[in-house]
Amino acid sequence: MNAQTSPVDKFSEKYVYSFGKNGTDGDTSMKNLLGGKGANLAEMASLGLPVPPGFTLSTEVCTLFYKNNEDYPSGLSEAVADAVTKLEDEMGMKLGDPANPLLLSVRSGARVSMPGMMDTVLNLGLNDDTAEGLAKRSGDERFAYDSYRRFIQMYSDVVLGLDHYEFEDVLESFKRSEDITEDTMITADGWQEIIADYKGIVERDLGRPFPQDVNDQLWGAIGAVFKSWSTKRAVTYRKLNNIPSEWGTAVNIQAMVFGNMGQDCATGVAFTRDPSTGENVFYGEYLINAQGEDVVAGIRTPQHLTIAGKKANGSNLPAMEETMPEVFKQLEDVRTKLEAHYKDVQDIEFTIQQNKLYMLQTRNGKRTAKAAMKIAVDMVSEGLISKEDAILRVDPEALDQLLHPTLDPKAERHVLCKGLPASPGAACGAVVFSADEAEQKANAGIKTILCRTETSPEDIHGMHAAEGILTTRGGMTSHAAVVARGMGRPCVAGAGSISIDYKAAEMSVNGETIKSGDIVTLDGATGEIMLGEIATVEPELSGDFETVMKWADEIRRLNIRCNAETPTDAKTARHFGAEGIGLCRTEHMFFDPARIMNVRKMILAENKDDRLKALSALEPEQKADFKELFEIMAGLPVTIRLLDPPLHEFLPHSEKDIEALANEANISVKHLKSRIAELTETNPMLGHRGCRLAITFPEIYAMQVRAILGAATEASVKPEIMIPLASTRKELEILKKLVDDTAANFNVEYTVGTMIELPRAALCADELAELAEFFSFGTNDLTQTTFGISRDDAGRFLPAYQEQGIIARDPFVSIDVDGVGSLVKTAVEKGRKARPHIKLGICGEHGGDPQSVAFFESAGLDYVSCSPYRVPIARLAAAQANLKR
Amino acid sequence: MNAQTSPVDKFSEKYVYSFGKNGTDGDTSMKNLLGGKGANLAEMASLGLPVPPGFTLSTEVCTLFYKNNEDYPSGLSEAVADAVTKLEDEMGMKLGDPANPLLLSVRSGARVSMPGMMDTVLNLGLNDDTAEGLAKRSGDERFAYDSYRRFIQMYSDVVLGLDHYEFEDVLESFKRSEDITEDTMITADGWQEIIADYKGIVERDLGRPFPQDVNDQLWGAIGAVFKSWSTKRAVTYRKLNNIPSEWGTAVNIQAMVFGNMGQDCATGVAFTRDPSTGENVFYGEYLINAQGEDVVAGIRTPQHLTIAGKKANGSNLPAMEETMPEVFKQLEDVRTKLEAHYKDVQDIEFTIQQNKLYMLQTRNGKRTAKAAMKIAVDMVSEGLISKEDAILRVDPEALDQLLHPTLDPKAERHVLCKGLPASPGAACGAVVFSADEAEQKANAGIKTILCRTETSPEDIHGMHAAEGILTTRGGMTSHAAVVARGMGRPCVAGAGSISIDYKAAEMSVNGETIKSGDIVTLDGATGEIMLGEIATVEPELSGDFETVMKWADEIRRLNIRCNAETPTDAKTARHFGAEGIGLCRTEHMFFDPARIMNVRKMILAENKDDRLKALSALEPEQKADFKELFEIMAGLPVTIRLLDPPLHEFLPHSEKDIEALANEANISVKHLKSRIAELTETNPMLGHRGCRLAITFPEIYAMQVRAILGAATEASVKPEIMIPLASTRKELEILKKLVDDTAANFNVEYTVGTMIELPRAALCADELAELAEFFSFGTNDLTQTTFGISRDDAGRFLPAYQEQGIIARDPFVSIDVDGVGSLVKTAVEKGRKARPHIKLGICGEHGGDPQSVAFFESAGLDYVSCSPYRVPIARLAAAQANLKR
Repeated sequence: MNAQTSPVDKFSEKYVYSFGKNGTDGDTSMKNLLGGKGANLAEMASLGLPVPPGFTLSTEVCTLFYKNNEDYPSGLSEAVADAVTKLEDEMGMKLGDPANPLLLSVRSGARVSMPGMMDTVLNLGLNDDTAEGLAKRSGDERFAYDSYRRFIQMYSDVVLGLDHYEFEDVLESFKRSEDITEDTMITADGWQEIIADYKGIVERDLGRPFPQDVNDQLWGAIGAVFKSWSTKRAVTYRKLNNIPSEWGTAVNIQAMVFGNMGQDCATGVAFTRDPSTGENVFYGEYLINAQGEDVVAGIRTPQHLTIAGKKANGSNLPAMEETMPEVFKQLEDVRTKLEAHYKDVQDIEFTIQQNKLYMLQTRNGKRTAKAAMKIAVDMVSEGLISKEDAILRVDPEALDQLLHPTLDPKAERHVLCKGLPASPGAACGAVVFSADEAEQKANAGIKTILCRTETSPEDIHGMHAAEGILTTRGGMTSHAAVVARGMGRPCVAGAGSISIDYKAAEMSVNGETIKSGDIVTLDGATGEIMLGEIATVEPELSGDFETVMKWADEIRRLNIRCNAETPTDAKTARHFGAEGIGLCRTEHMFFDPARIMNVRKMILAENKDDRLKALSALEPEQKADFKELFEIMAGLPVTIRLLDPPLHEFLPHSEKDIEALANEANISVKHLKSRIAELTETNPMLGHRGCRLAITFPEIYAMQVRAILGAATEASVKPEIMIPLASTRKELEILKKLVDDTAANFNVEYTVGTMIELPRAALCADELAELAEFFSFGTNDLTQTTFGISRDDAGRFLPAYQEQGIIARDPFVSIDVDGVGSLVKTAVEKGRKARPHIKLGICGEHGGDPQSVAFFESAGLDYVSCSPYRVPIARLAAAQANLKR
Repeated sequence: MNAQTSPVDKFSEKYVYSFGKNGTDGDTSMKNLLGGKGANLAEMASLGLPVPPGFTLSTEVCTLFYKNNEDYPSGLSEAVADAVTKLEDEMGMKLGDPANPLLLSVRSGARVSMPGMMDTVLNLGLNDDTAEGLAKRSGDERFAYDSYRRFIQMYSDVVLGLDHYEFEDVLESFKRSEDITEDTMITADGWQEIIADYKGIVERDLGRPFPQDVNDQLWGAIGAVFKSWSTKRAVTYRKLNNIPSEWGTAVNIQAMVFGNMGQDCATGVAFTRDPSTGENVFYGEYLINAQGEDVVAGIRTPQHLTIAGKKANGSNLPAMEETMPEVFKQLEDVRTKLEAHYKDVQDIEFTIQQNKLYMLQTRNGKRTAKAAMKIAVDMVSEGLISKEDAILRVDPEALDQLLHPTLDPKAERHVLCKGLPASPGAACGAVVFSADEAEQKANAGIKTILCRTETSPEDIHGMHAAEGILTTRGGMTSHAAVVARGMGRPCVAGAGSISIDYKAAEMSVNGETIKSGDIVTLDGATGEIMLGEIATVEPELSGDFETVMKWADEIRRLNIRCNAETPTDAKTARHFGAEGIGLCRTEHMFFDPARIMNVRKMILAENKDDRLKALSALEPEQKADFKELFEIMAGLPVTIRLLDPPLHEFLPHSEKDIEALANEANISVKHLKSRIAELTETNPMLGHRGCRLAITFPEIYAMQVRAILGAATEASVKPEIMIPLASTRKELEILKKLVDDTAANFNVEYTVGTMIELPRAALCADELAELAEFFSFGTNDLTQTTFGISRDDAGRFLPAYQEQGIIARDPFVSIDVDGVGSLVKTAVEKGRKARPHIKLGICGEHGGDPQSVAFFESAGLDYVSCSPYRVPIARLAAAQANLKR
């Protein structure tokens, strides 16, 4: 269903790509083949940056691995052996050589970053002999055995599938018995004791010893990385991020460097600019004498890279700029080089081994929408990129974050405590303590705040389901922070004064206890956590936002309208730049409590006279509605859809409402119930609705047309009257005549058009265009009928469809280009053939989906119409679509 | 929606076509323009047959009349005046000339005959002066004033819109006051008195006198005929007979000839062969001294044309062959000439005026299916037509009559009385006395017999709704008889011993009283009426039927399969010539009371193990079902559709059944109810059904595949396993793998294919064809999704759609060629492109509809599959389709 999901059917002969001083096979353009990490390691190596040498097994190997029932393609083992030899030559060390052992890291690396989703093995190559050798050669016994125990622990978890708690228990009880609190206090002997216990666990659980053969270790790790592509958490992440399972992951095998060999060693992560605000400051954290995973996992509180960063965050731990000024200068140099080369913000990982800097990774940095705006605008003024590049640089979906309300600064706040402002925006909801609970509550329509000591990839589904995320540990680059920013969820991280008691399902802070279900509010911009619900205000859009939007408006061809029927929505949409209303659903006006009684009387009327009476009571109210909308949209086009839903939708369901209506309509409850039953439909979606209502009850549309045209005579709007659900020329002929006949009593300009929301309408669009002055694609219904899937019922099978890769994206979110899209194209072609200047738009949910907007641009529509908050997204997406054409 | 409905957009300049000795403008090929009657009058005039001269206003005038808001095209009045002058010249008489008045008949005449549906005016041209003139010139004062009063009565009814009962009351009270019973006993003076009263009614009701100006009379009549095209009864008839409203009617204006000028005058109708049996005998009725309408209306009991006919019907009234041997000979001559010329049975009307024969009409005669068979076969052996002509001559729809059960001759019959065997077949139902009641009962699913003294065009809807029709008056060519034969409804006409009391809602015969609602049985082949329900037997198919079917089989290209899942259906279908099963709906097997409990347990299973347990209980039963079917269909292809409907369809609805299931499944009633509610869907048609069931519960299809293949190993059938409701390639990929994996345990050949029943499946048929070895178009669902119309809910608006001419035929009965058909064509093209030898069939209801079969032939499918009783219809329709290509 998606062009990107087509399986690889031609494979290269080459499976293994080396990088290093002795020659580099890949570059950054080869991301699909080498994964993001592998391609960028190769690119950095070519740029002359200090990258530990290594090689990459391509994503094709992964595809072949799954294609061949988890078996490797022939020739792979020879190619890996060659690459290892090349690596040994460059390093002057040998894998498994006790005298001078080469250690390796084995890491995953997909086309797009999936942070923390897949498995990694470090310190590979250690066994009883090489550990001893490493101790001798490094002169640091403690380091060597610490490395060995780390390797056993990691390998047992990732490759051998043993429970990591068993190993942690050993470590904890050793510390207890020795009465020490920190790992750093364990001596070489202590580690050796622990190693013996670790090996015992492996032998007991598996019935065989921990593998001593370094080649077995290597192939075990490679297999584990490939298999980690199919773990539940990776599958969930791909589903949420629309990553096809066919892409596969690469495996990066690299010489180990050590950030944990002493006080002249360190490891860190950084962004070349602030990923929260977009400011052009070097932004990052490091830990002395640590391995890289320690920073990301958020277990130790990291230190800031720069003095400015340290000050801004009120930290009193020394900055790297202070502790390692020389290496820091090298790192700053790398920062400048990378930005100049990639012309985008980079997210980097580095290790310092004995005062020597090694670059372990670079990739385009994830950023908040606000930061994306600022970075794009700044880079244009810095001359790094063009306006067009800037437009392409901002993810339209991410704008959502900027457009939603933030906390009202004037509202009273009962601040419980403060954490790190990890992802901006305000969120309010019931406290939950597990991802599963967040998901269950979301399904029941309850907004939640997910509260965890720290989050892990297993929590992804709950983070997605929650309104906001709160953690008590971890920094700005912790898992929770990175993922929340990517999702656009507000997040407060590392709120250390809170302690969570999972068992009691409560948390306490400063003597206050907050139970599961209590309402709290997070301010992701300040890091504040408040009790209760706090009032919000509309966001003030930054100058950078306005600048980017102005550029987008200059570049885009598509007009952007909004779907709105209330004055509030219409005003919001106009504020966000809507160029008219593409869909005003008149039925929404019917549901107003003040008028629903007349609507119901109209429906229950046993004859035309009674129906006319009820309709004429509704008419002045409809007219007033339209007038208000027209005034808000003065000078812009407004498309009004005549009544669409089946009439039974307006009838009451509860006993109380039924009784009230029976009294008011002066009929018996029994009679009313039988009338409601009579109007009930087997498949209401395919029933007596849309223009079918007007074929049987023309007086309903006649009333609406009078209300529209009456309002238009008093406002400066030329209404576009839209007939829904037409599938034949004759329906349109009859109803256009009804509109025209009614309009004869008004002196006002208008046009008449139709929705294209049924396959037949698309297939016979030429006939419809003979009468319709415009088409508006109702892609929601068109998707329902083209696929034969009811949106209301899809929940029972659509998730399975996404899990099994049957559909890449929910077709109600992103248009199905091959099926529904082909009907859209047919209708555009046939419609324009019959009426060359027919106006063409789309007003389904897809109007606010960037991928769909790209399709509508290519299909040559005149406008897209979407919900008010998605108008800026659509504006930007339309500009991108025009640039990508 | 229908190619035939496209409105005329080019018009001829010529509106009026004359016929007669002084030149004839039209011929039989111009039926669309001149209507059937007009074209054939012109043809007969050209053949030199004795046709009263006249002229025809074309159907285009009718179309323009409606297009121009019921106004005539310019130039028409001049053309009519010219034609009248030409007619006056030929006749040597003058319209409105008291000395020698020309009288005219004004009759409707559409492309296809719509017997009795539209209006006729006779004796036009009479007024106070010309009536006197006619009296003088004919020397028959009584005849002249009788004609004048007939004219006033008819014109007042048809043109002036007055109630005909008022005129009948005058006549009845006159007869009562004079103490006479028959119209023929009224004298000239009597008629003059009545005429004065008639004129009084007109003046009183309209406020103006009866028109004396003959030109006003003429234009009034023309307008009335055109307007009669839009009366409710005409619209109903067109709907039932699929006649587009755009066709319009012509108006035929002809010099009057008189069958009522004395005992040497007569009028009659005849068929050139017996329209009930097809026998090559001259078959007709006449009335001496009568106008034509008297015969058709069934008011006087007509006499037979031939001595043989008289004897066969046990009549003792003299035959025309006896009373008017000379004219009879001329008529026999005309009979021979017409059959030789038209090469088909003709239905003729004639009038004899003073021993001179005039032909008033000829048209192809309606006939029973049995007669159609015999006539076709006879005409081939007579050398009149070819086998191909014969095939084209039989209406496939009419075969339905031959295939349904007739009364068991051995069953005991309590014969109430006997009428005329007016239309063959047996019918049984509750007695009703009005068309409306018949329709209401039919809507409630109750079978009825419509009992009337006589029927009129107003009764059409009731005749259609009833199972059979009984009249107490009228002959074999009465309205009831002709219409019933056309509809294939059994009919007993003229059962004079029955007297109906409409007011008491009962009828009495030979001392027995039958009340409304009592059950009676009609035997349309014998004319017998019986109390109660009589057993029926399968029809014995005649040799003619077999002959025609053999020819059809030689000619057709399409294979014909059946939709069947029960052994009875499969046997019936094979008996009727089915060449395999195109659709075996496995869910029908699930509903068997003996196994529904296991089906329900399977659905309610909370885990896979319980589901598997329930499925394995079902498996042997499914296997046995398939084995039985396979044995019946030995050697022929059998397509089995895997489970299709949403699971909630199998769950109980009544409290009692719910309780029983809860007990059996060992769960609480409350839990079961909540589970049922949980499974209920908003739009089940678009819900969790078809292959979507197998994506979520693959074990269901796996069980079915094992049952199919297990049965196939024990029978000589290569099953075709069909996946329903696929819309993406990946669904098919997953499920084909499931079938293939399951099949690995069986040593049996099979193919896997899919239904094309969703627009997306048709649009992406190339992708599906990469995996599917066959396609079967599920045109029921495809129509539902393409139109966005639920069959279950369409009843509320589809009738209005047909009445307003939005759709010409119910798209669930006859395929919508422009919309649904275009998807079928797309899928055929794309499917064949991806897999050149893909097998293509259709298994929706359309497979048994001749018009749809013609489309499927043109679309190049390999087979159609239909319900067993429609197999012969499809065989014949397929042959016709191939001939018409």
